Amino acid sequence: MALVVQKYGGTSVGSIERIKNVAQRVVATKNQGNQVVAVLSAMSGETDRLINLANEIDPEHSRREYDVLVASGEQVSISLLAMAIEALGEKAISFLGSQVVIRTDSDHSRARIQDIEGDRIKEALTGGFIVVVAGFQGVDEDGNITTLGRGGSDTSAVAVATALTADVCEIYTDVDGVYTTDPNICKEARKLHKISYDEMLELASLGAKVLQNRSVEFAQKYGIPIHVRSSFSDIEGTIVCKEDESMEKAIVSGVAYNKNEAKVTIRGIPDRPGIAASIFSAIAEEGIVVDMIIQNTSAEGLTDLTFTVPKLDYDHAISALHKINQEIDASEIDGDKNIAKVSIVGIGMRTHASVAGRMFTALSQENINILMISTSEIKVSCVIAEKYTELAVRVLHQEFELAKDTTDES
Amino acid sequence: MALVVQKYGGTSVGSIERIKNVAQRVVATKNQGNQVVAVLSAMSGETDRLINLANEIDPEHSRREYDVLVASGEQVSISLLAMAIEALGEKAISFLGSQVVIRTDSDHSRARIQDIEGDRIKEALTGGFIVVVAGFQGVDEDGNITTLGRGGSDTSAVAVATALTADVCEIYTDVDGVYTTDPNICKEARKLHKISYDEMLELASLGAKVLQNRSVEFAQKYGIPIHVRSSFSDIEGTIVCKEDESMEKAIVSGVAYNKNEAKVTIRGIPDRPGIAASIFSAIAEEGIVVDMIIQNTSAEGLTDLTFTVPKLDYDHAISALHKINQEIDASEIDGDKNIAKVSIVGIGMRTHASVAGRMFTALSQENINILMISTSEIKVSCVIAEKYTELAVRVLHQEFELAKDTTDES
Repeated sequence: MALVVQKYGGTSVGSIERIKNVAQRVVATKNQGNQVVAVLSAMSGETDRLINLANEIDPEHSRREYDVLVASGEQVSISLLAMAIEALGEKAISFLGSQVVIRTDSDHSRARIQDIEGDRIKEALTGGFIVVVAGFQGVDEDGNITTLGRGGSDTSAVAVATALTADVCEIYTDVDGVYTTDPNICKEARKLHKISYDEMLELASLGAKVLQNRSVEFAQKYGIPIHVRSSFSDIEGTIVCKEDESMEKAIVSGVAYNKNEAKVTIRGIPDRPGIAASIFSAIAEEGIVVDMIIQNTSAEGLTDLTFTVPKLDYDHAISALHKINQEIDASEIDGDKNIAKVSIVGIGMRTHASVAGRMFTALSQENINILMISTSEIKVSCVIAEKYTELAVRVLHQEFELAKDTTDES
Repeated sequence: MALVVQKYGGTSVGSIERIKNVAQRVVATKNQGNQVVAVLSAMSGETDRLINLANEIDPEHSRREYDVLVASGEQVSISLLAMAIEALGEKAISFLGSQVVIRTDSDHSRARIQDIEGDRIKEALTGGFIVVVAGFQGVDEDGNITTLGRGGSDTSAVAVATALTADVCEIYTDVDGVYTTDPNICKEARKLHKISYDEMLELASLGAKVLQNRSVEFAQKYGIPIHVRSSFSDIEGTIVCKEDESMEKAIVSGVAYNKNEAKVTIRGIPDRPGIAASIFSAIAEEGIVVDMIIQNTSAEGLTDLTFTVPKLDYDHAISALHKINQEIDASEIDGDKNIAKVSIVGIGMRTHASVAGRMFTALSQENINILMISTSEIKVSCVIAEKYTELAVRVLHQEFELAKDTTDES
């Protein structure tokens, strides 16, 4: 008998009909001889409705009360799912974060899970119940309700799976797995059977929004496999797990892209210690998160600095730099909003040389100019003009033969 | 410095604008030098919306999960009010039933409050916070969420007031107090300054729906005065409190009516022991609550029995009686749905004779026939034809000079 934790997102429980479908899936999993814990998000649209109410009261509302408010969303979905399971003749019981107990720190609206007691879930499972747990929410040491921030239900599910030492954590979503790239851009995109935690983390942070990063970190830390699959079909999805040999056969596992960044360039600044610190302190003080940073040496003791920021923060960043220009004495501050970041990700890179070179060559053969380059152990990212994004993704997908299944399972 | 508990019903917090109004009232009460605890219902319409969702899933839903579901309603209203208070520059903190702790039994969807810890509220008050508490909900010994049943927020408020030994419990509603009778029927109806707990209980059970009975019983038991007043105006409402001398000057305090009952008559049943038990057991087994019961002796060892039931249960009651008629051997089973119960209530009756006689005389002078009579220490009720209801109310209001204020405060 396996212990299966299943997480259903807001779309999967977005209507009465869908909640009934989820109930059938949960009951079917139990009837296959498993113990089942379902972790839920709020019905889709509900969290936004509640946030709008809060903003109508006061856009500057306190984060403690915000958490009390939005945590009501999962309270609705878990009780309805428990009812729907009972209507199918199975025993079910719902638990809030504060009942389970999902203990978090007190950083309201972006709390981090510290510990899950889990005794109450185990007791209910032993009693033959299907257990339904509210995702996204917890409770701090003083009994205040907390929430984990958007997408936090993934993390709740993995944390519950960890606390129960579950056999697998299934994340049901509106896509049926993790693809080699965005199928909307590249029709050859192929669903991956397996992907390593590290690759998943890189893909997620590069713009492939399938799983919340913190949930993958959690699963990796405790070695819980995650099965990403669709709540609208029965086909196998993608397993996110520890690296194994089959994975290493592929040099590159996926191509990701991100159109939400802009490039800022500062030219002709004195090449002396402390100058970069001044610049990035000024940017950080505005609450702007910098992604890639590149510094070139240039002639006559002057240097150029280029970095990327979220597109939404671009104007803000430029004006912050103008404010400190007396101090940094740049000859020019400019930038470009029409860029995109295209990345290849794969643990195979660790053992294969010249992967970056193949990427640059493939792009240059299509006359795509590379504006910035950044690499890590299992990733190469290039910033290019935004208009070439789709072309670049398709070229790289072909160059690294991602349409071809190289794993053992194929 | 007084400690004031204020309860706001669903209509009072039914929109963002109204929640902001409540915030202003709460803050004004604090600025008058009081400590303030606000106990809230869910926003009007919200509980019905949630119940509809549950019924769409399964009309036979479990009561435990129903409680989890509907308790989310107050969670929304308390967090929004806390935000609205903070927006006015005061410190506020919201608490759920499970946080306060409002301990109840485990009788889901109609739980009874057993105990309130209240330490957390006291601590917050001492810290200068306005405290906002979810009404209607509690938590049982095992940490399961419970609800008190419709109207339970009144009881929550009185229970909180009791736990804190508050100076007064103000119940804000959409009427501005307790009237001598329904102002929609009798334009001479007068708002009472004060009314005793006993009278309030009789009026409530006779159809004047201002306060939930259990909240009045609670307040009476612990001697907490209730101030019933409007959330849409600043004028004084009605104080429900212990009897005092000023109250006794009025023989009758109010005239109530109830059009929601029907009369059932069973004729010609054998006048022998056990026959009434058979009849009322059969009725009770159908879950029908009987109100008035009258038995007349009649000739030849046969008797007639008349009783009232809720109008909605009338057909059900008649068919239940036909089912057992072989056993009870009645010559006739019939009834009347077009009746009303008109009642006078007043603690003054205890010391004044002939109050009932004056009532009967007043009705007969208008040719209103009395079909049934029932009395208690502080109440006389008559069942009459429904079409005379308004006339009877006006006649009795005049007969007992209720338009005239006889209390000291006038």
